[in-house]
Amino acid sequence: MDDRSDDHDIEVEGGIHAYERKISGILDDGSVGFQQPLLARNRKNTTSQIAIVGANTCPIESLDYEYVFVFPNFTFLLFWKTETINEIRLLGRVAFCRVIYFQAFFAFAGCNLVLATAAASLCAFIAPAAAGSGIPEVKAYLNGIDAYSILAPSTLFVKIFGSIFGVAAGFVVGKEGPMVHTGACIANLLGQGGSRKYKLTWKWLRFFKNDRDRRDLITCGAAAGVAAAFRAPVGGVLFALEEAASWWRSALLWRTFFTTAVVAVVLRTLIELCRSGKCGLFGKGGLIMFDVNSGPVLYSTPDLLAVVFLGVVGGVLGSLYNYLVDIVLRTYALINERGPGFKVMLVMAVSILSSCCAFGLPWISQCTPCPIGSEGKCPSVGRSGIYKSFQCPPNHYNDLSSLLLNTNDDAIRSLFTSRSENEFQISTLAMFFVFVYCLGIITYGIAIPSGLFIPVILAGASYGRLVGRLLGPVSQLDVGLFSLLGAASFLGGTMRMTVSLCVILLELTNNLLMLPLVMLVLLISKTVADCFNKGVYDQIVTMKGLPYMEDHAEPYMRNLVAKDVVAGPLLSFSRVEKVGVIWQALKMTSHNGFPVIDEPPFTEASELCGIALRSHLLVLLQGKRFSKQKTTFGSQILRSCKARDFAKAGLGKGLKIDDLVISDEEMEMYVDLHPITNTSPYTVLETLSLAKAAILFRQLGLRHLCVVPKTPGRPPIVGILTRHDFMPEHVLGLYPHIDPLK
Amino acid sequence: MDDRSDDHDIEVEGGIHAYERKISGILDDGSVGFQQPLLARNRKNTTSQIAIVGANTCPIESLDYEYVFVFPNFTFLLFWKTETINEIRLLGRVAFCRVIYFQAFFAFAGCNLVLATAAASLCAFIAPAAAGSGIPEVKAYLNGIDAYSILAPSTLFVKIFGSIFGVAAGFVVGKEGPMVHTGACIANLLGQGGSRKYKLTWKWLRFFKNDRDRRDLITCGAAAGVAAAFRAPVGGVLFALEEAASWWRSALLWRTFFTTAVVAVVLRTLIELCRSGKCGLFGKGGLIMFDVNSGPVLYSTPDLLAVVFLGVVGGVLGSLYNYLVDIVLRTYALINERGPGFKVMLVMAVSILSSCCAFGLPWISQCTPCPIGSEGKCPSVGRSGIYKSFQCPPNHYNDLSSLLLNTNDDAIRSLFTSRSENEFQISTLAMFFVFVYCLGIITYGIAIPSGLFIPVILAGASYGRLVGRLLGPVSQLDVGLFSLLGAASFLGGTMRMTVSLCVILLELTNNLLMLPLVMLVLLISKTVADCFNKGVYDQIVTMKGLPYMEDHAEPYMRNLVAKDVVAGPLLSFSRVEKVGVIWQALKMTSHNGFPVIDEPPFTEASELCGIALRSHLLVLLQGKRFSKQKTTFGSQILRSCKARDFAKAGLGKGLKIDDLVISDEEMEMYVDLHPITNTSPYTVLETLSLAKAAILFRQLGLRHLCVVPKTPGRPPIVGILTRHDFMPEHVLGLYPHIDPLK
Repeated sequence: MDDRSDDHDIEVEGGIHAYERKISGILDDGSVGFQQPLLARNRKNTTSQIAIVGANTCPIESLDYEYVFVFPNFTFLLFWKTETINEIRLLGRVAFCRVIYFQAFFAFAGCNLVLATAAASLCAFIAPAAAGSGIPEVKAYLNGIDAYSILAPSTLFVKIFGSIFGVAAGFVVGKEGPMVHTGACIANLLGQGGSRKYKLTWKWLRFFKNDRDRRDLITCGAAAGVAAAFRAPVGGVLFALEEAASWWRSALLWRTFFTTAVVAVVLRTLIELCRSGKCGLFGKGGLIMFDVNSGPVLYSTPDLLAVVFLGVVGGVLGSLYNYLVDIVLRTYALINERGPGFKVMLVMAVSILSSCCAFGLPWISQCTPCPIGSEGKCPSVGRSGIYKSFQCPPNHYNDLSSLLLNTNDDAIRSLFTSRSENEFQISTLAMFFVFVYCLGIITYGIAIPSGLFIPVILAGASYGRLVGRLLGPVSQLDVGLFSLLGAASFLGGTMRMTVSLCVILLELTNNLLMLPLVMLVLLISKTVADCFNKGVYDQIVTMKGLPYMEDHAEPYMRNLVAKDVVAGPLLSFSRVEKVGVIWQALKMTSHNGFPVIDEPPFTEASELCGIALRSHLLVLLQGKRFSKQKTTFGSQILRSCKARDFAKAGLGKGLKIDDLVISDEEMEMYVDLHPITNTSPYTVLETLSLAKAAILFRQLGLRHLCVVPKTPGRPPIVGILTRHDFMPEHVLGLYPHIDPLK
Repeated sequence: MDDRSDDHDIEVEGGIHAYERKISGILDDGSVGFQQPLLARNRKNTTSQIAIVGANTCPIESLDYEYVFVFPNFTFLLFWKTETINEIRLLGRVAFCRVIYFQAFFAFAGCNLVLATAAASLCAFIAPAAAGSGIPEVKAYLNGIDAYSILAPSTLFVKIFGSIFGVAAGFVVGKEGPMVHTGACIANLLGQGGSRKYKLTWKWLRFFKNDRDRRDLITCGAAAGVAAAFRAPVGGVLFALEEAASWWRSALLWRTFFTTAVVAVVLRTLIELCRSGKCGLFGKGGLIMFDVNSGPVLYSTPDLLAVVFLGVVGGVLGSLYNYLVDIVLRTYALINERGPGFKVMLVMAVSILSSCCAFGLPWISQCTPCPIGSEGKCPSVGRSGIYKSFQCPPNHYNDLSSLLLNTNDDAIRSLFTSRSENEFQISTLAMFFVFVYCLGIITYGIAIPSGLFIPVILAGASYGRLVGRLLGPVSQLDVGLFSLLGAASFLGGTMRMTVSLCVILLELTNNLLMLPLVMLVLLISKTVADCFNKGVYDQIVTMKGLPYMEDHAEPYMRNLVAKDVVAGPLLSFSRVEKVGVIWQALKMTSHNGFPVIDEPPFTEASELCGIALRSHLLVLLQGKRFSKQKTTFGSQILRSCKARDFAKAGLGKGLKIDDLVISDEEMEMYVDLHPITNTSPYTVLETLSLAKAAILFRQLGLRHLCVVPKTPGRPPIVGILTRHDFMPEHVLGLYPHIDPLK
């Protein structure tokens, strides 16, 4: 029984003792394999970037319906800053390149190392939760899992600057995932009424202080992040719908659409202001980042077969990418858990490796003569331009260095262009593909904010262009289009989204005629990859041990009923309860919800009155509205309470049981729980199929589900189901003989 | 009590008696105002196209999870045929135009009248359900309301040919709504395993014979319809998501995406085949129907103000459109309910009016000199071309006739173009706007399949171009862009969609740079119009009296609890029940679900066993698996039954109680209901807030919700909630003193 009640303990805010007890229990057992979630591996769960960072179930319940004032999100500022700093670094680097090669290398690598160390230090020492993409955490939050400090202001700060330094340090990482996380953090800051710690509070924001509105805000924030990152407003809405959000309703669609419309208008205005070029690389490409609009697309059967081949191989490579990322993350977790110092050292090692590759590989590549008619642009030593001179003689350029020693955006743009078929040699494309594919995998686990979109798009685009070059004799399609389709196949193979990727690619490239082919490739690569493993974000959520509720029940749940998984023994309060009993219960357990029972003499027989939340009980105890007699005095309490006392506090800001000071005399007094009891909880009969209970729990976004007895003459409540009771680990732990696939 | 149990009666398949009793009850009351749903107005509910056509609640329940094989949908064939016949008619008409004006008019009007009569006769005599847009019915079906014959094969047939004749007859109607309905009908035909009546059955389709898969298929069909109509695959997915579907899950997103991808590829192939022009107008414009891709769009503050103005006025006009459509529909209902003959006459009258306007109005318009450099194209007498000669002297053209005497697609295309600013005079645009706006409203209610998209886009585009011409001195924006924004504002004002309209317009026009402006206009016009009334489809659903469940609970429901609205008296069966009792209950009531109670001696006390469905009870009675003793023999029954006996029959194909022949001796025997009882029904406590019960009912897509008592010592079930119990009419009928807004 002890083990089962521990499962409830994870739910507590700050229930670290029970939590560590659980972890050490698993470790002592010695049966933890490489396939276990990292939950069991990491003792110091707040320091490792890929460890579980708390499993504080967020109480996303069906609350009352109030309107959300939608807000514009200024994530694009991050975008602008990244571009600017990146540009400064490139300026320095390219200038050095012309002098002496070793000196240039040390300047280049040194510059990268300093930026990388800065990013890693921020991440390791200030906010470990800011490491990684952030999309899995946002996805988990929107599913109802409130991991520790994942949306805190410190995370926001580190995410912004860490991402700027990380991208500028020349890692193969993107800024898209971090921008989604940034958007969600800003939304959360608004949702909890600002931050009291950092003296940023607004009074009018208190209207958002409930779970439902906060969830809506964070969905809008995620949509705004994608909209700003890809300059794709419709793609942002669809991303929020398809990947991020777990619950959806038409009002939310309309709110995210409004948010991204504001982002689009603001972005458009800023790009207009930056038209003169005074903002550096920001605004390059206008609203459509990679405009590859080329005449009508004609294709025949061999072309279609080539596209199908591209999709199948892309799907296989994409799922292999996920598999390797998984292995690398688990390996890095062993290093990262040793402490922040080790994290920084790992980042430095990867940075040096990246610099060596980026500077060393172009030496292998042959010089290409400049195409005719490109005077002035080729060869270039400037900060942008796709014909980099590197070590080549005049009128020649090094095509590999054009890809490696450039911004990611420029590299993607030159891969997507169809201008000249022979711009990139086959060997160059192959080397670049291997470089990006491997380095992308190696880089993801380190302690910097790192998005996955850009590495995947880069690898996919070079893979597609490579296939296009190889299939040149067979297919009439342009290599630029092959490149786009390759990127689509990789995205489909790793992230497993469909509509949103399709629209994002459309908005990135402005090539509507490609739509049927892009849809085809996405479908094929997703289908192929789904045969092997899960999407990369789902995989990370699982690996972190976050109790994510899928939107369908597992097959084996059909053979169980609700009471089979209810944990016991159950702790419940009487309607008018002794203060000491409540204090004891709150102190000893870490449950978040307690059933309240109406008992004689107030009613004829025992009845379920409802559920009281721990946070509300704490507020009630703090208010010391006690009575010496065991009588109902709920109306008095109601008069003396204010609704805002019970508003949801910011993350980790709520009252703790240890904050309360209650005298021995008060311990003997009574308190009427009726005013704070939710008298209308959702209930299921104990004989309801577990699969149906799981669907109910998931669809309505519950935190607690009461199980009531079917037969008369028993206590009015059998137990409470929480998120953890539906997790496969828990259910299969209780019934190890069940076949999980039946 | 009688009134309340009647509410359950509506649920029956074929419960016409109870239904008419209810209707006449309302009529006798004399209190039916103009604002009542038509449910109360129409006695002959199967003949009027806009009457309620039955309110047979579809049992969309949470069933087991099986995979759907997705299917390609060939709705685009309709598209092709419409274009072809339309073209034939235009050929005849234009040839006549050159001879004598009266003769030409009679040929034109006669041709229209014949086509209109054909469409109306099909609709009035064969399938009245095929009239109108069809989108509201599909939307209601996906919400769980299975209206009579709305997806039957006869409806499909009439929808296809009626739509072809209707569009060809020169009415201001679109083919988009009918194509969505066609897609849904085809999907339904596949979903019920073909049609036995028309000897079209496939064995492998029996896997779809459950509600969940059929619902998914019909969603895919609706998406395919939009994808084929607008050649907008992504727009189709989003339309299905935003407007049609009530429940959504990621697997469905992926299936609709697959369906529309197949539609896109097939369309692309057919357009490629038709490149030589041998398919008439089909394929004109390629995959992007109205390609208005024009250089970079620049706009300043006055332009933005002009766009805001356009959006606000568009929203007001859009909601006025909805209001007028509502009034016209209610007026026509009075005519249509008199019989099919009156319906046809109404259609003929509207057809003559349309012909007169289309032929008469251009005479008012002045002739315009042909623009320089348009030799050979201007003036034209051919079937397409935007410079129609009409009555004008050589080298002049009549711009109003270019809009009126053309296909709808060509008219939209010429309104969207920016080629020459002065192509259309202000007076022309104003006349065309009034013509389309008024005739669109007058035409919608008549007995032909008629879509709303095209009239709204036409009216919006002419309105936008008119505003653009008027604001010419203030704004630098192109009038073609104004026209597009005007169309967006009208669409937003009438249909109230956001993301899907945005993507559809994007895919129609291939102008990604307009995206921020289109989003802005859609948001403004939707917000403005929402202040006045509901979207046009929601309005039609309400007017037809279909019990549509909104995805949020009404405010006043928070003040009620579940038992407040439960209808009584409750009829329940014992686990082993006498055949006569069951037969009696099925005969006397029209309930669709009956609670089954476990009683002594089989259990210690009365317990809720589950719910048995009427259709399953009928199958059980027909099988005559009876016993003389009152004992449990469920396992014997299970052995002798096959699962497919209980598969869901096609619409209206199920067993009726009158089909059963049961002897008096058998009536005294017993039957064990356990094998057919759903022993795991969803339950709520009687004290659960009605708002929460409504959310549960809606989110899980239930058909029956059991209400169980809270206090011990009472029968184990209080009642059953169905869709009708949550309808505002029912709740406010029971509690007239409640303020519906609180």
